Amino acid sequence: MTTVKLYDTTLRDGMQGQGMSLSAAEKVRVVKALDRLGVHYVEAGFPASNPKEAELFELLSTVDLETAEVCAFGMTRRRGIAASEDDALRTLINSFAPVVTLVGKTWGLHLEKVTKVSREENLDMIVDSVNFCRSEGKRVIYDAEHFFDAWRDDSAYALACLNAAIAAGAENVTLCDTNGASLPHEIASATATVVDELAKAHPDAAVGIHTHNDAECGVANSLAAVDAGATLVQGTVNGHGERCGNANLISILGNLELKMGLDVVGPERMRLLTETSHFVDELLNVNPDPDQAYVGRNAFAHKGGMHVAGIQADARTFEHLDPGLVGNGRDVLISELSGKGSVLSEAEAAGIDLDADAAKRALEHVKEREHRGYQYEAADASFELLLRREAGQYSPLFRLESFRVITEKRADGHIETEATIKIWVDGHRYVRTAEGNGPVNALDKALRLAITDLHPHLSDIELTDYKVRILDSHDGTGAITRVLLDSSDGHDSWGTIGVSENIIEASWEALVESLEYAFQPAAVRSD
Amino acid sequence: MTTVKLYDTTLRDGMQGQGMSLSAAEKVRVVKALDRLGVHYVEAGFPASNPKEAELFELLSTVDLETAEVCAFGMTRRRGIAASEDDALRTLINSFAPVVTLVGKTWGLHLEKVTKVSREENLDMIVDSVNFCRSEGKRVIYDAEHFFDAWRDDSAYALACLNAAIAAGAENVTLCDTNGASLPHEIASATATVVDELAKAHPDAAVGIHTHNDAECGVANSLAAVDAGATLVQGTVNGHGERCGNANLISILGNLELKMGLDVVGPERMRLLTETSHFVDELLNVNPDPDQAYVGRNAFAHKGGMHVAGIQADARTFEHLDPGLVGNGRDVLISELSGKGSVLSEAEAAGIDLDADAAKRALEHVKEREHRGYQYEAADASFELLLRREAGQYSPLFRLESFRVITEKRADGHIETEATIKIWVDGHRYVRTAEGNGPVNALDKALRLAITDLHPHLSDIELTDYKVRILDSHDGTGAITRVLLDSSDGHDSWGTIGVSENIIEASWEALVESLEYAFQPAAVRSD
Repeated sequence: MTTVKLYDTTLRDGMQGQGMSLSAAEKVRVVKALDRLGVHYVEAGFPASNPKEAELFELLSTVDLETAEVCAFGMTRRRGIAASEDDALRTLINSFAPVVTLVGKTWGLHLEKVTKVSREENLDMIVDSVNFCRSEGKRVIYDAEHFFDAWRDDSAYALACLNAAIAAGAENVTLCDTNGASLPHEIASATATVVDELAKAHPDAAVGIHTHNDAECGVANSLAAVDAGATLVQGTVNGHGERCGNANLISILGNLELKMGLDVVGPERMRLLTETSHFVDELLNVNPDPDQAYVGRNAFAHKGGMHVAGIQADARTFEHLDPGLVGNGRDVLISELSGKGSVLSEAEAAGIDLDADAAKRALEHVKEREHRGYQYEAADASFELLLRREAGQYSPLFRLESFRVITEKRADGHIETEATIKIWVDGHRYVRTAEGNGPVNALDKALRLAITDLHPHLSDIELTDYKVRILDSHDGTGAITRVLLDSSDGHDSWGTIGVSENIIEASWEALVESLEYAFQPAAVRSD
Repeated sequence: MTTVKLYDTTLRDGMQGQGMSLSAAEKVRVVKALDRLGVHYVEAGFPASNPKEAELFELLSTVDLETAEVCAFGMTRRRGIAASEDDALRTLINSFAPVVTLVGKTWGLHLEKVTKVSREENLDMIVDSVNFCRSEGKRVIYDAEHFFDAWRDDSAYALACLNAAIAAGAENVTLCDTNGASLPHEIASATATVVDELAKAHPDAAVGIHTHNDAECGVANSLAAVDAGATLVQGTVNGHGERCGNANLISILGNLELKMGLDVVGPERMRLLTETSHFVDELLNVNPDPDQAYVGRNAFAHKGGMHVAGIQADARTFEHLDPGLVGNGRDVLISELSGKGSVLSEAEAAGIDLDADAAKRALEHVKEREHRGYQYEAADASFELLLRREAGQYSPLFRLESFRVITEKRADGHIETEATIKIWVDGHRYVRTAEGNGPVNALDKALRLAITDLHPHLSDIELTDYKVRILDSHDGTGAITRVLLDSSDGHDSWGTIGVSENIIEASWEALVESLEYAFQPAAVRSD
C-alpha cells in the first residue's frame, strides 16, 4: 500500500504570511500538536537566522516527539566556496535536527536574473551541499525551488538538478511550485514524468510536492502529485503562508486519509484534526475560518427542515462524511475539552479534586459559554478557574463594588482615558484612579494600585499580549467582543478570556481572571 | 475554440452561507457588477419565496443588462400533480426571467429516504416540468442535484435523468456535487463519460458543473469538469455558500482565462475581477480575504530583498502573472477609484467642481487614507465629503469643543453608558448629555439634541446599519478599528466611515460624516 508522509512547514514557510508571529515557546507547542496529529516531518526553520530561531532549536532538542522528526532548513552553499566553509551549512549540521532540508535552484531564469550563477556551478552547489550534510551524518531532503517553472522552461536541466541531489545522497527531492503558477493537470503530468525518470537510475528515490494557493488549487495540486507518485507532501496548518498561502495540510490530510483511502496517520489521530487546526489559529491570533474544509465551524452545518429530516433518516443524504472522523461536529461548537478526554482528567492534571457531578456541571458550563463565544483552547487559566469554582476550591481575590472608564476627546483633538475602580480586598475598601493609553491599560493600573497593597507579589505580573476579536453575530444576537489576555510572572505564563457586547467589560473579565489565577495556591498550577 | 459560460449563484446558493444577507436593492447592485464583469447567467433565486425575492425580480425586470441573463430558480413539479397545476412552476413561468433553472433529483438514496418518490415518477417529474417551462417560452437549465453521489451509486439512472431533461428541451444539464464529496479525478472521469454519452443522442446538449468546497477542491473540481468537456460553470463570488462554500467563481474565471487560455469574458473585463470581488464582500460586510487568489491584498505581495530585486530584473521570477491583468496591484492597496477612472469623473458625477490640482490632491489623500485602513467603496458619503473639502465646497455643520463617553459598571453588575458633547453651531454653544445602549448610540443622541435645534430636518436621519471590523495590524502599527455606518432619511441612503485605534473615535468620525453629508446642499447629492 502506498504510504504518504506529511511534511509541515508552518513554522518556516507559513510564518512568511502577513501578520504571522509566534514566540519560540509557542512554536514548541505547535510542534507538539503536530506530533500528536502524527505529522512525520516538522520543519522548524534555519537554526540561527535570529535569536528566536536559535532558542527554538535549543528548546526543541529537549522535547520527546513520538512521530515527528525535526527538519532544519537552509540553502545550498554559496558560490565560489567549499560547502564546509559555508557558515550557514555548518550551522545546519551543528543543529540537533536529524534531517536537513536544502533549497536550491532549478530554473534558468533565476540563475540568470537573480543569483547570477552558471548552470554548471549550480549543479556543483547542489552536489557539494548534499554531500557535506550527508558526510556529517544528516539525512537530506532537497527542495527544488520553482521546479514547475523550470520544467516548462527546460525539463532536462530541471531533471539534472534532481538527479544530482539524489546521486549525492538526498533521500527525497521535493518539487516546489514556488510562485503558485501551476494547475493540477500540469502538476500531475510533470510529477509522473519525474517519478518515472528518477526511478531509472535511483529506484529508491522519493519525490515530494510543495505547492501554493495562488490559483486556489493548492490542495488539488498536492493530491494530483500524490496520484502521480509523490510520497511526501509539504504544507502548512490551515494553509497559512505568503501571498495566497501554502497548500493546506489539514485539508490534504483529510482528503488523503478519508477520500483517497491512504493510511497516513490512522483513524485515531484523524480525530485530532479539528482541534489541531483551531489550536494553531488560536496561537496565531487568527480567526479560524468558519467555512474551512473538514474543520470549520460551518463545515457540517445544516439548514432547513429537509436537510435535518434527511440527516435523521440517513446522514449520507446531506453529509459527505461523518464529522466525528475529524473531531468536528454537526453544527456544534467545538471545545478542545471534548477532544482531549474528560473534564475529570483535566482537573486531575491541574491538581483539582472534582467529583463526577461537578465534572458534569463544568462540562455543561463550558458548552453553554462556548455558545456565547468563549473559547478555552488558549485560555488555560480561565478554564482552570472554572473547574476550581465547580470544585468549591476557589478563593476570590477581591470583590468589585464598581468601575468607571472615561474616554474624552478634548478641544485640541487629544484623546484621554482614565479609570476609577472601587473594590474590597480582605475587608478593606480601596478607591483608585489611573490614566492609561487605553481603557484596559487604565483599568489594569487602577486595579494594581488597589491590590498590591495587600498582595505585593501580584505586581510582578505582566500582561504580555492582548488580542481582541469581533465575532460574527449569529442568531441575531448582535456582535460579540472576545478578549484574550496573556500574562506572565517571569516564570510561568497563562491565558485568560472575556466575552461581552461591551469591549470594556470583556477586557475587565480577562484582566481579573489573570490576577485571580495568579492568586490561587501555587501548588495547583498546571504549567 | 471552446467557450465556457459563467453562471453566478451568489444571490441564491451563496446566500445559504452563515450570516449572508443582502437587501433587494443590494442584490440589484450585485447583478449589475456581475454584468459589467461579463458573467453570462445570474441566478436571482425563486421569484416569490418571500417578499424580498418578489421585490428583487420586480426591480431586475427594469434593469438593462449587457452580458448577463437572469435565471429564476425552482424545483421540478411536486409529485402527483400536473406541472401546470404546480404553483411554484407557475410563479417561475410568470417571472420576466428568460431562463428557468430547475433542480431535481438523480440519486436513489434521496428518492428513497427524503422525497419518497419512485424512480419512474422522478423521471416524469423532470420531463413534465421541463416541458411545461419550454411550452411557456422559457429556456431551461436542469440542475442534477447530488449528481456525483448518484453516479457512484447507479450511473445508468443518473444518466437517464439527464437524458430525460434534455429530451424534454433543457439546453443544459448541470452536474451538481451538492454535498461536496468529490475529488477532481472523480469529477473528471464522470463528466467525460456524461459528455460522451449525452452526445450520442443529443449532439447539442451542453453540460455544466456546480461544485462545493468541502474538500477544498471546489475550484479544481470545476476546472477538471471543463477539461472533461463541461461548457458552463456555476459558482459564487468569493466562494460564499453554505458549509465550506461554493466553488469560487472569481478564482475559476482567473484560471480559465489566464491559465487555461479560454476566452470567457475577455482581457478588458478581467481587469474588473478584483473590484468586483471586493465590492460584493463590502455589501455583505465580510472582510475580503487578504490571501484570496488573484484578488487578495496579499496575492502579489512581496517580502525580502531578493524578491524585490528579482521582480525588478524580471517580474516572472517571483510572480505567476501580472497583477494588473486582474485589476490587482503589487502590494498596493486597491481603491474602487483607480478601477473606475479618474477622480474628476467622480466629482463631476457628484456635481462638484474640481480642478486638476485638487483632483490630484484628492487622489493622494485617498491613497494615504487607504494605507491607514480607510476603504471608500462602501462609504460613498465620506468620499464625496473628501472631494468637497479639496474643492473648497464644504460647509462644516458644527465645531466640536469636546466629547466624553463614560462606561460604568455598577455594584449590581449593571453597565451604563452616557455621553456628553460640547459643540458650536452657528455661533451658539451647546452642551448636551444622553444615555445610550452603547457608546455610539449615546454620542448620536447627544449630538442630535444639540443640532436639531437649528437644523430640525436632521432629526429624520436614521442610522440603519453599524459595522465594526478590527483590521489586522500591519507594519507593527497595532490593531485598527474601522467603523462603517449606513444612514437614511427615508428617501436616500448613504455610507460613511471612521478609522482609529479607538473604537469610540472611529464611530464618532463616521457619525459626524453621516450628518455632515445630509447637511450639504441637496443639489449635489449623487444618489
